[in-house]
Amino acid sequence: MARVVVDVMPKPEILDPQGQAAAGALSRLGFTGVTEVRQGKHFELEVDDSVDDETLGKIAEGFLANPVIEEWTIRRVEK
Amino acid sequence: MARVVVDVMPKPEILDPQGQAAAGALSRLGFTGVTEVRQGKHFELEVDDSVDDETLGKIAEGFLANPVIEEWTIRRVEK
Repeated sequence: MARVVVDVMPKPEILDPQGQAAAGALSRLGFTGVTEVRQGKHFELEVDDSVDDETLGKIAEGFLANPVIEEWTIRRVEK
Repeated sequence: MARVVVDVMPKPEILDPQGQAAAGALSRLGFTGVTEVRQGKHFELEVDDSVDDETLGKIAEGFLANPVIEEWTIRRVEK
């Protein structure tokens, strides 16, 4: 068994209204040092040893992210 | 300027219907080695050097996460 983390973020050229809303709210609340916020998704998968990196790539590209508007990173982490 | 990553996840004892849906879909699609999926949020903040760790803690606890049902990690990353 292994734990795999997939982080999915809007591509840099894609507007991120959720992140903009968070950044605007923080500024209004007095946290003036935060200049940008971008929000994405964080997945933690438990996979058995039969799942190789190619399969993980298919899962991330096909089902966890939308490749048209999002980019993603995949990493295996120690538990 | 620094980049800060905040990952927010449902606490282990909290049901995660989004993650369960993803896990169920992957299983039906033939990715049988994935035994669990949990889904959370991934924030990337650009902050200036006046923002210390205590302030980042307040931002994460107060505005990015819901401490009743979520846990979070904060880390500064190299750009």
